[in-house]
Amino acid sequence: MNTVYTFGGNAPHDDPRQKDKTVTGGKGANLADMASIGLPVPPGFTITTEECTRYLTHGESFSDELRAAVAQALGHVEQTVGKRFGDAADPLLVSVRSGARVSMPGMMDTVLNLGLNDETVQGLASASGDERFAWDSYRRFIQMYGDVVLGLDHGLFEEALEIAKEDRGYFADTELSAGDLKELVGEYKTIVAAERGEPFPQDVNEQLWGAIAAVFDSWDSERAKVYRRLNAISAEWGTAVNVQAMVFGNMGDSSATGVAFTRDPSTGERAYYGEWLINAQGEDVVAGIRTPQYLTKAARENAGAEKPSMEEAMPEAYAQLARVFDLLEDHYKDMQDIEFTVQQGTLWMLQTRSGKRTAKAALKMAVDMVGEGLINEQTAILRVDPMALDQLLHPTLNPDAPREELGTGLPASPGAASGKIVLDADTAELWSNREEDVILVRVETSPEDIHGMHAARGILTARGGMTSHAAVVARGMGRPCVSGASGVSIDLASRRLRIGARELKEGDVITLDGATGQIMAGRVPTIEPELAGDFGVLMEWADKHRRMGVRTNAETPADCKTARGFGAEGIGLCRTEHMFFDASRISAVRAMILAEDETARQSALDRLLPEQRSDFADIFRTMAGLPCTIRLLDPPLHEFLPTRDEEFAELSDSLGLGVDHLKRRANELHEFNPMLGHRGCRLGITFPEIYAMQARAIFEAACEVSTSDEPVVPEVMIPLVATQKELAILRALVDRVAEEVFADTGSRVDYLVGTMIELPRAALMAGEIAEEARFFSFGTNDLTQTALGVSRDDAARFLGAYVDKGIYARDPFVSLDVDGVGQLVELAAERGRATRGDIKLGICGEHGGDPESIAFCEKVGLDYVSASPYRVPIARLAAAQAALRSGG
Amino acid sequence: MNTVYTFGGNAPHDDPRQKDKTVTGGKGANLADMASIGLPVPPGFTITTEECTRYLTHGESFSDELRAAVAQALGHVEQTVGKRFGDAADPLLVSVRSGARVSMPGMMDTVLNLGLNDETVQGLASASGDERFAWDSYRRFIQMYGDVVLGLDHGLFEEALEIAKEDRGYFADTELSAGDLKELVGEYKTIVAAERGEPFPQDVNEQLWGAIAAVFDSWDSERAKVYRRLNAISAEWGTAVNVQAMVFGNMGDSSATGVAFTRDPSTGERAYYGEWLINAQGEDVVAGIRTPQYLTKAARENAGAEKPSMEEAMPEAYAQLARVFDLLEDHYKDMQDIEFTVQQGTLWMLQTRSGKRTAKAALKMAVDMVGEGLINEQTAILRVDPMALDQLLHPTLNPDAPREELGTGLPASPGAASGKIVLDADTAELWSNREEDVILVRVETSPEDIHGMHAARGILTARGGMTSHAAVVARGMGRPCVSGASGVSIDLASRRLRIGARELKEGDVITLDGATGQIMAGRVPTIEPELAGDFGVLMEWADKHRRMGVRTNAETPADCKTARGFGAEGIGLCRTEHMFFDASRISAVRAMILAEDETARQSALDRLLPEQRSDFADIFRTMAGLPCTIRLLDPPLHEFLPTRDEEFAELSDSLGLGVDHLKRRANELHEFNPMLGHRGCRLGITFPEIYAMQARAIFEAACEVSTSDEPVVPEVMIPLVATQKELAILRALVDRVAEEVFADTGSRVDYLVGTMIELPRAALMAGEIAEEARFFSFGTNDLTQTALGVSRDDAARFLGAYVDKGIYARDPFVSLDVDGVGQLVELAAERGRATRGDIKLGICGEHGGDPESIAFCEKVGLDYVSASPYRVPIARLAAAQAALRSGG
Repeated sequence: MNTVYTFGGNAPHDDPRQKDKTVTGGKGANLADMASIGLPVPPGFTITTEECTRYLTHGESFSDELRAAVAQALGHVEQTVGKRFGDAADPLLVSVRSGARVSMPGMMDTVLNLGLNDETVQGLASASGDERFAWDSYRRFIQMYGDVVLGLDHGLFEEALEIAKEDRGYFADTELSAGDLKELVGEYKTIVAAERGEPFPQDVNEQLWGAIAAVFDSWDSERAKVYRRLNAISAEWGTAVNVQAMVFGNMGDSSATGVAFTRDPSTGERAYYGEWLINAQGEDVVAGIRTPQYLTKAARENAGAEKPSMEEAMPEAYAQLARVFDLLEDHYKDMQDIEFTVQQGTLWMLQTRSGKRTAKAALKMAVDMVGEGLINEQTAILRVDPMALDQLLHPTLNPDAPREELGTGLPASPGAASGKIVLDADTAELWSNREEDVILVRVETSPEDIHGMHAARGILTARGGMTSHAAVVARGMGRPCVSGASGVSIDLASRRLRIGARELKEGDVITLDGATGQIMAGRVPTIEPELAGDFGVLMEWADKHRRMGVRTNAETPADCKTARGFGAEGIGLCRTEHMFFDASRISAVRAMILAEDETARQSALDRLLPEQRSDFADIFRTMAGLPCTIRLLDPPLHEFLPTRDEEFAELSDSLGLGVDHLKRRANELHEFNPMLGHRGCRLGITFPEIYAMQARAIFEAACEVSTSDEPVVPEVMIPLVATQKELAILRALVDRVAEEVFADTGSRVDYLVGTMIELPRAALMAGEIAEEARFFSFGTNDLTQTALGVSRDDAARFLGAYVDKGIYARDPFVSLDVDGVGQLVELAAERGRATRGDIKLGICGEHGGDPESIAFCEKVGLDYVSASPYRVPIARLAAAQAALRSGG
Repeated sequence: MNTVYTFGGNAPHDDPRQKDKTVTGGKGANLADMASIGLPVPPGFTITTEECTRYLTHGESFSDELRAAVAQALGHVEQTVGKRFGDAADPLLVSVRSGARVSMPGMMDTVLNLGLNDETVQGLASASGDERFAWDSYRRFIQMYGDVVLGLDHGLFEEALEIAKEDRGYFADTELSAGDLKELVGEYKTIVAAERGEPFPQDVNEQLWGAIAAVFDSWDSERAKVYRRLNAISAEWGTAVNVQAMVFGNMGDSSATGVAFTRDPSTGERAYYGEWLINAQGEDVVAGIRTPQYLTKAARENAGAEKPSMEEAMPEAYAQLARVFDLLEDHYKDMQDIEFTVQQGTLWMLQTRSGKRTAKAALKMAVDMVGEGLINEQTAILRVDPMALDQLLHPTLNPDAPREELGTGLPASPGAASGKIVLDADTAELWSNREEDVILVRVETSPEDIHGMHAARGILTARGGMTSHAAVVARGMGRPCVSGASGVSIDLASRRLRIGARELKEGDVITLDGATGQIMAGRVPTIEPELAGDFGVLMEWADKHRRMGVRTNAETPADCKTARGFGAEGIGLCRTEHMFFDASRISAVRAMILAEDETARQSALDRLLPEQRSDFADIFRTMAGLPCTIRLLDPPLHEFLPTRDEEFAELSDSLGLGVDHLKRRANELHEFNPMLGHRGCRLGITFPEIYAMQARAIFEAACEVSTSDEPVVPEVMIPLVATQKELAILRALVDRVAEEVFADTGSRVDYLVGTMIELPRAALMAGEIAEEARFFSFGTNDLTQTALGVSRDDAARFLGAYVDKGIYARDPFVSLDVDGVGQLVELAAERGRATRGDIKLGICGEHGGDPESIAFCEKVGLDYVSASPYRVPIARLAAAQAALRSGG
């Protein structure tokens, strides 16, 4: 097995190890790949990752075999280029770069122009006919080598450079003449000698082996170790070293350098796209000192630019580049991001890789490439990042508009919105009814704010994480939301607030960008989303290739309609309690909760029944013919109770009970840990009349709406079950009410009774629970809270530190903790199926809209995922990708 | 297989099915057993449980085979007794009783005197020579049969009896003459005919089959079904029917009836113990109309009673009875509870069973019987209910003292205590320092009340369950506690309270019985516990036969000393936070929490270090040579913060920070679900300096106290771990601090680092976590909370209903939910051991003191259990029982 692989020129590229990233690293494999398809790659060689491991485990020494192999490989480079390494007359210069299996910060990056010394610099000057170029290259080499190989403080070199310019009254580096640079090289060498205690190495082989050792050593640098630990990269992988002949884009006007994309990465259009500079080095394009020129004539004309395009200025090199573009797309079957250099009329390829792109471009390219026959539908599906679709579904800020940032929070729900600040939900509703755009700003939101959140264009909270109440509800509603903006402080008494350093008052206009978390002053113009044809085409392909169904979490007809528009195939979670917060009902709800006896409670429930019935009827109509999973009342009752004195006074009037009495009752309902309190099916067990009312409303609505063409099949879901018996008791109650309604109405609908699996015990006992359940819906929000012992509402204080330290790779409320919570889901699915082969399995936690979690659901074999309306397309695409990746 | 088994007389008792409870029921098997060892049992027969099932599944009809078998068995009884069933001259009378595999309420109990009718009553009168006896028997029979077989309202008969007495101006039933009773029988028959539409059955066979059917039918009564459902008794078990010849203790002065124990069930003394009445029926002894007489001469003399003992009055029958006692003890190897009747000089045994006894008696008998060679040590160990030991370890109320009950709550921590009511912890401490006994009465307690709880003789709370803060801490301290006494309401402003209907004020004296939950007015005298020699002997045997170690949960030297006295073999859980609440430290703790930066925090920690070090040194000294598991800080920080304005003001002075600022900081630390919040190892991850201080205190103390004879081996326990990484990070921290201390002090101790397994995820990931952990301690309190999704502090609202409905068989915080939580424990133990074969496994939740849970720990193979000091003896005995039962 080779320790060194050559590429470029007449090197053979047929050893499969050479294109194996684990052997030659990402960069080495890629260079070999380009060379093997005949692209003009500067010749060079790669020392394998295995040699890195050998070096580090053998006292940081090189074997004689390796030294021999490098010498031989260097010979290949010399022969191909026609120059000799260290040749005083016309020296070969090389670059040395690290290249691990995956791109990894913390390792040595690059040393350019290696091979220059006091002698060869003269040779380079005469061979290139450009003395300034030669001395500038030498200067840069000493600085780079001093910094990354010798470990000297690079500030020392910067300082010397600045002094040199100041002394001469220059402003730009380019003003330095060859003579100036020669002097500067002298100063640089003095710095090296003083700092290092030895002169700058003049022996080019010493330079080379020093750089190779530096690359290997950098694998064990502290920064690299930290990065590896955080990203589960094994220390044994090692890094490869790439040594490559230098090419120069700055050898006069027949030389150039540029970066390009084979298609427009912003729009996805099939047009070469890029920038270049004549007589420049790669870093000059990036540094922005000179304004780069357009690549194509069309682009230049389109922009009305003066300076010639490469197509016009260097037609031969451009034609060669265009051929390379086509070759690369055909080879890699994807849009490429390219770096190239033209040295004295000859094109050299320095890098190619799949290019980053906007969501819109990704979509267009994927669909176009299928049309072009370049890729098939499956590949197209896998090409688009599902999360990126989010950008396409919400209004976005006009990137060209000026913006004044006041502060930032967490990007909790995407989209952009502008409006007047309102500080409570009632004001939000009031102003919104006056046709004003409002942004609801709260310390944090609670279920009582729902109507205000609905009325607002966007939501900003000072507290709460990515999965706080505000964030979850906003995503469900498709409202932009910035949460946990710690720079926001609110003084309700004076109706004023502070965002960062700025004092504002209710009514002032701000703009939120829910995709970045930015809060801006005034109104920043937005761009409406275009759900272009490509979107529909890709979604259609996705639907064809996915196995799992995609439902939505929704409870209002508006949300249901949105979700159907996005392709939802049913409701996976209808949270009935959201209907309880409606202003017209809350007093009946409160009367029910505070009832002193069952009669009083029943009379309040009787008032709620017709309201709930009409809610469900609306939903069944909207979702006509599609399955609807309706969860019976879940939150602890005290969430519905008043908190403010006015509300207590109002309630006291309407119930005819003293304020003190009501406050005492409310206080009695207080819980230390409401998440683990008297909620879910525990309400149904202790107050069966509440669940009975809800079941009646469901069945009456179903009987009313159901038709033979579009039958309503309600799926009644019992929350927070931990034991078979809870479900048995409540299922019997639902069955009894169903039969009563069927008898009363003379009609009958099919229905299922099932449960959420959202407690570890429920997962463990799934085999027994399945005896009573026709379906399981994994409530992974609560399952995560209980399995990890983490309250979503309180996690902000430590979860950030946890993700930073890699304790959890990602926020476990955003992406399912597959290792831990995943075990419970898998085990429950297995045990549930063992008891009831045809049990329907779905997920309705927030994870149902997260691609990584969806991939897990596919693996476990769930029947469907359910996501908030705006996440439905993401879920459809992610489900298709998951099916394709698992070989479905 | 027989459908009917005869017993008594010359019946064979050699078919093993006859002594099999599943065939003949508990009572039937017992009667056969007694008869087979030659005891004088009235002859009779048992219809098998299988016939019950047959009857209920065959349209409630009897087979001809059964009818024939019953006729034949009845013949055996007739022959043995020498009377004929239905014989007008000298009738055989029988009793009919149900008898299932286990004793089960809701089924038909007993019909006596069956076989009487208008004719046979005359025969009975003449044969017994007692007309009154005959008519009284007939009257009783009609009433009993009417009630339990015919299903008539027994009130009707009672009423007729009352009227008969009133009409005649009588007070007692005994005043009714034969003639009166004859008239009453006439009225009874009229009632039956009117209610039933048919006359009272005169055919004795109809009577018999009616009673048999009634027994079978009662198996399917609603009450029986409910009981079965709640106790997991299969409906298919069925009940047997026992038909037995009547014997009469009320046939003159040579007849008698009595109940007896073969030893004193109260003291355990080896002395026959019982009561008897001449010329009486069994029910008369129980009813208390006549005062029963002592059984033995010694007992009579001892009590100074007049009426003769049975030993004196009926020496032959008594001698016969004494022989039976010895025979029974020898046969059953246990103290027996006996019912007997002497009919005209002949002794008949009606029942024998192992007798209930006090804890003290159980202990004495178990030890005595080993001495007598009746049983071996293993049996003795199994004979004593571990929970009953609790009675022996705490002062108890003098049962003879009068008591005025004000209300009741939950029996949260055993023992009795009297004292003045105090309404807050500071007052408790203040008054206690004045040498006053106080009872702390709170709505509920929090960690801030610890000093008051310690100062109090007993604790009473209005809220909270058996495992509330008050209950857990009180049990740990050995303080009696009554929790969740909903009848208690407190008005702190006026320093008054109400218990039930009684208005009281601070300073009034009450008494608590923590073993029953009673709250009494004034001071009720108590009896101090005697840990007699028998206790020590039994504990020694238990220690010999148990496999698991027994440690204690303790954090004060006083508790440690108590626990050692009770035989604790180490500390399983030392909760360091309890030390933080000490008045002298709380301000440093608060300064640490509210520190604005790490420097301020470190300076507060520096003040705490010597305090913690001396805490640990004290504990290590007390536990010299025994292992001590010390848990690093666990509760959320806001638990330590002030709540009252005075406290804030004080803190403001000491920290030099504004009250508003402090309140805002305190408010920021508020959590929605503190149980799932920023606590446990999350504190260690985010504030490593806190854990570092604690670790330093532990190691410095250990180095100070450790000697070569009694080395200190601290076991540092990291709480609330959910991931391997958390433990890895914190273990590295502890190791680093240990090395620092060893270097500083120049000495070195062995130590272990391990973790609590108290989150479902930790249990699931135990294999990985074990890579970092030398031990696991199952924190089953929190594991139960998270696995079941139930907050211990909030569960009172529904857990009662849950246990009532049989959703959980017992409070899962008292007895481990083996089905659910048990799976997690078992799985974690397996996975932990798979990774690290010698990992030490223990349990430190409250369940560590619960015998059923301890049996589970034995099954899973844990190395030790840890219980609060007063539960240590219970745990020792329960562990021995568990080992013996699992064949160890």
